[in-house]
Amino acid sequence: MKKLLLLLLVLLPLLTFAQSITRVNPTNWWVGMQEPKVQLLVYGPQAGTLTYTVEYPGVTLTKTGTVENPNYAFLDLTIAPDAKPGTVRLVGRSGNKLITHKWELKARDNRPKGQGVTDADLIYLAMPDRFVNGDPKNDKFKDLADPDADRANPFYRHGGDLQGAAQKLDYLQDLGVTAVWLTPVIENNQPLTDEGGTMRSAYHGYGFTDHYTVDKRLGGNAAYLDFVQQAHTKGLKVVQDAVYNHVGINHWFVKDLPSKDWLHQWPSYTNTSYRYQPITDPHAAKTDRLVTTDGWFVPFLPDLNQQNPYVANFLIQHALWSVENFGVDAWRIDTYLYNDQPFMNRCNAALLAQYPNIHIFGESWVNNVVDQAYYVRNKLDFPFKSNQPGALDFVLEGGMLAALKEVGTPGATGWDNGAQRVYQALAQDAVYQDPNKLVTFLDNHDHNRYLSEVGEDVDKYKMGLTWMLTTRGIPSIYYGTEILMKNYKDPSDAEVRRDFPGGFPGDKDNKFTVAGRTAAENDAFNFVRTLATYRRTHPVLSSGQLMQYLPENGLYVYFRYDANGTVMVATNTTDKEASLPTVRFSERMSGFTQAKNVLTGEAVANLNTLTLPAKTAVVLELGK
Amino acid sequence: MKKLLLLLLVLLPLLTFAQSITRVNPTNWWVGMQEPKVQLLVYGPQAGTLTYTVEYPGVTLTKTGTVENPNYAFLDLTIAPDAKPGTVRLVGRSGNKLITHKWELKARDNRPKGQGVTDADLIYLAMPDRFVNGDPKNDKFKDLADPDADRANPFYRHGGDLQGAAQKLDYLQDLGVTAVWLTPVIENNQPLTDEGGTMRSAYHGYGFTDHYTVDKRLGGNAAYLDFVQQAHTKGLKVVQDAVYNHVGINHWFVKDLPSKDWLHQWPSYTNTSYRYQPITDPHAAKTDRLVTTDGWFVPFLPDLNQQNPYVANFLIQHALWSVENFGVDAWRIDTYLYNDQPFMNRCNAALLAQYPNIHIFGESWVNNVVDQAYYVRNKLDFPFKSNQPGALDFVLEGGMLAALKEVGTPGATGWDNGAQRVYQALAQDAVYQDPNKLVTFLDNHDHNRYLSEVGEDVDKYKMGLTWMLTTRGIPSIYYGTEILMKNYKDPSDAEVRRDFPGGFPGDKDNKFTVAGRTAAENDAFNFVRTLATYRRTHPVLSSGQLMQYLPENGLYVYFRYDANGTVMVATNTTDKEASLPTVRFSERMSGFTQAKNVLTGEAVANLNTLTLPAKTAVVLELGK
Repeated sequence: MKKLLLLLLVLLPLLTFAQSITRVNPTNWWVGMQEPKVQLLVYGPQAGTLTYTVEYPGVTLTKTGTVENPNYAFLDLTIAPDAKPGTVRLVGRSGNKLITHKWELKARDNRPKGQGVTDADLIYLAMPDRFVNGDPKNDKFKDLADPDADRANPFYRHGGDLQGAAQKLDYLQDLGVTAVWLTPVIENNQPLTDEGGTMRSAYHGYGFTDHYTVDKRLGGNAAYLDFVQQAHTKGLKVVQDAVYNHVGINHWFVKDLPSKDWLHQWPSYTNTSYRYQPITDPHAAKTDRLVTTDGWFVPFLPDLNQQNPYVANFLIQHALWSVENFGVDAWRIDTYLYNDQPFMNRCNAALLAQYPNIHIFGESWVNNVVDQAYYVRNKLDFPFKSNQPGALDFVLEGGMLAALKEVGTPGATGWDNGAQRVYQALAQDAVYQDPNKLVTFLDNHDHNRYLSEVGEDVDKYKMGLTWMLTTRGIPSIYYGTEILMKNYKDPSDAEVRRDFPGGFPGDKDNKFTVAGRTAAENDAFNFVRTLATYRRTHPVLSSGQLMQYLPENGLYVYFRYDANGTVMVATNTTDKEASLPTVRFSERMSGFTQAKNVLTGEAVANLNTLTLPAKTAVVLELGK
Repeated sequence: MKKLLLLLLVLLPLLTFAQSITRVNPTNWWVGMQEPKVQLLVYGPQAGTLTYTVEYPGVTLTKTGTVENPNYAFLDLTIAPDAKPGTVRLVGRSGNKLITHKWELKARDNRPKGQGVTDADLIYLAMPDRFVNGDPKNDKFKDLADPDADRANPFYRHGGDLQGAAQKLDYLQDLGVTAVWLTPVIENNQPLTDEGGTMRSAYHGYGFTDHYTVDKRLGGNAAYLDFVQQAHTKGLKVVQDAVYNHVGINHWFVKDLPSKDWLHQWPSYTNTSYRYQPITDPHAAKTDRLVTTDGWFVPFLPDLNQQNPYVANFLIQHALWSVENFGVDAWRIDTYLYNDQPFMNRCNAALLAQYPNIHIFGESWVNNVVDQAYYVRNKLDFPFKSNQPGALDFVLEGGMLAALKEVGTPGATGWDNGAQRVYQALAQDAVYQDPNKLVTFLDNHDHNRYLSEVGEDVDKYKMGLTWMLTTRGIPSIYYGTEILMKNYKDPSDAEVRRDFPGGFPGDKDNKFTVAGRTAAENDAFNFVRTLATYRRTHPVLSSGQLMQYLPENGLYVYFRYDANGTVMVATNTTDKEASLPTVRFSERMSGFTQAKNVLTGEAVANLNTLTLPAKTAVVLELGK
């Protein structure tokens, strides 16, 4: 008995420390990438205690790094320009024991990727779980932390997937959309979490649990690849929703942390303040800055420490891998301002070096242009300079919504009210290196739905859409806006993330079809389609210059113009028909004698004085 | 008879064209100025038809310029460094006829001048006509275009003057004021003008009619010189209110314009839009920009064309002359943003070259930091770069007033409301090269009076004054604020420009004295005096660093600190007493164990948790 115990004591460490490699990230790489270096995260029991060699022509292991947790090793590889595609053997040695792992070095293909989105595009944002259920067989899996799906519960998964989204590409194309942005598709094998007393699933996708796996409830990697390819075949681009700031509490590396400093650690749980001011405030306390950037977004989304070089490399390589592997065209970045900004610059630079046309636009939910400009290429002479090409334009969204609330009220003609809010937001565009690269929007999955924000007033709804689809920037539309979906975030986000009617088996109505839509819904749909189509076919509305005039008496006039044409947008924000003399606009109108109303098709014979209906934005194509 | 007629025809042109020099501006100059060149505007019948010579050792006439109007000549003089003071003979020749004009070249004196104001100062803004009538004999003059004075009429002159202001320097010094800013003192020989149906005088002073003459109703040049000297003797500085954008319709050169382009001319009368956005908006129409800058402020204030080099030189030299002649210390510039900005830079540069310590701060009435920063030395990488050292901080004023309106309401704890508005305004200070050089204020002669803005709530009144007197920047106070003067601009500006009680013969009350003030007025006066005195005697409140913390639950905390001390300002904007744990502020409080309440003198023994009364800003001097 004593001998047996002794034997166990001797064997136990050996058994416990049985070495193996269970995971390597990135899961593969490519020859011929712009950056010759790649750092492999090698994971497995005691993987960090092995001595590594790499046997492959043109691939050199320059360094092996280890961290506190013996289950991790980091292999720095350099891939020669003339290396050939093939299977690389990673060999880990412990004494006489050899552990090998096959890791693929692929040839790059010629599929389009990183094409970018520009102001010639119209982006459509959808939540795959709530858009279309193309494959009811992948709605739930017993082996996942959250094995349920229940359309009756607003907080549970509803079964939508990439196959479903792919089925509606024709619908989107018909609407005039040219790019699809899906909320994140990466595996969120998160448990249900208690949020304000209700149990909620991670259907939104912002809690990654394995970067290299697309959630199988959305169809997995194959379905995503197929979705991108189908979109590209139809001439549509794809925007991937990236999350660097945090991962899911169930992320595999969170469950066996490489090192304590892999995450932002606090003596006791510390939430971010969600306030951006301490980042740019020269008077800020260090602690306030730290709470903003290093506090956790919520308790179940651990906050990554991007100042840890291994974390940084992991994230940057995943970004490159995603674009190269799936062929996506643009990169929307979640919670941009909470990230380490020098890290963001490195990450953006890596993507742009490999994909010069890719567009990158982050979410920085701020209320002023200084803080918005800080996170993009800007004209601010601040110590930190962002290299991000674009950003979601929260300031213009705020201006447009506040303006629309005042349309038709005495506030419409106020000194700083009504259309002045839109005018003044755009008037500060000099802070950006290129405001045309900002992505404009009227709502999204975190905001009240646009139609509700404008009090379900269809005139206002059309006015705001007209502004967004004719002013500078890259317009984006949130799924369902075109069919008058509405709701407030009260009591929860789920209210603005309802299923698209017709996207799910058993749906009574199918709003994807003319027949399934009401007259009002078809009117809205056709309105968006008309403007989106006009924008797509008339480059003046995207690449043309913008000239805006000071709003007067609630009338807001601007022009888009280039060598080939001029479009005038004249908005009457009052509740009475207005007569607008045009002599003030001669800088842009001189030489033009007539016009076509883009929305009604009507001819306008007299340009000297325009008649603007109440609460209407008129779009005129000027002619000689 | 025929001969007589012929004689008349021959003589008439000679008579009409009788040449003479009636005016030379600048009226004198000095030897040893930093800039050796000066351009004399020579005016008189046919003065522009003469051929000029200047006979004086060390003074060279390099060029004589003429304009459309033959009554003007412009003499470019260069004054050698070794030129001696004396009387320069300007000689104009027409054939054999010589016209001479004596022009004085003075020695510079050693009186203080251009001392500047800094954040160690407290500025007091008064309107001389409404402050104190020191000499009732100069209230009205029959030879002026507006010969009346009538205290019963809010729009007429009331008789206040520089002699009166000088009498109250002790009062101001006792209050803690260190600099006096008077609205313009230069001659406004304007007629009464019809403004909105009422006849109004130019008691405000913003319509100059002769740059080189102080209005005789204010005491004339001698009284101004005496006022500055008395102020300096008491250690007070003087801020002059400068107006470049326009002059009075009765300005002598407007009545005989040198050239059409001396003023901004329009086909028909065009008012400025008063909108600043077109200046910085990259999308602005040229016409909108032009209306802003070149439109007239009101019909009776002709708009100067500063792109005319003679106009520019005239204005720049007048600025230098004013500082040198009267010895003023700082330069407040009216309607700053309406001026030609390259001209403003030249003008600022000229003043700063001669008076390196002078402070210059313009009025740019805007609602956002980008447009405010544009007109000062900033961190904006815009094509035009302003060299103005300071500016009136309209953005912070707006933030403070909006915050105070919400104090004690549920809005006090809102996400972007209450003290957040102050915090957020300051959090954008990175746009300025030096935010400490901004002049802060809570009201002025164009705004509703501060006490009325805060609903006559003395708690709010004290809170805002505490903020202004303890945060960054150069504080300024509008006359009467310290004795609870109140009123809205409705129905007119005159309501916020009422006479200081006790400043005029026959006044029932004398609020300049303790006995003349009510208990509430003395409480307000003493409050300002206590804080202003503490600020003056504790440099940490001026030159110390500012650190502010994110407001939480309506509690806003900031610190001023330097090597010698730390002052904590803790504001409770809610309507309930609050308990504030201080562990969050350890970055600034560590090492301190007790404090003194600056306003009450009370000792605070326990710094771990502070008790903050409702609607109160507590100022604590921390101690070890």
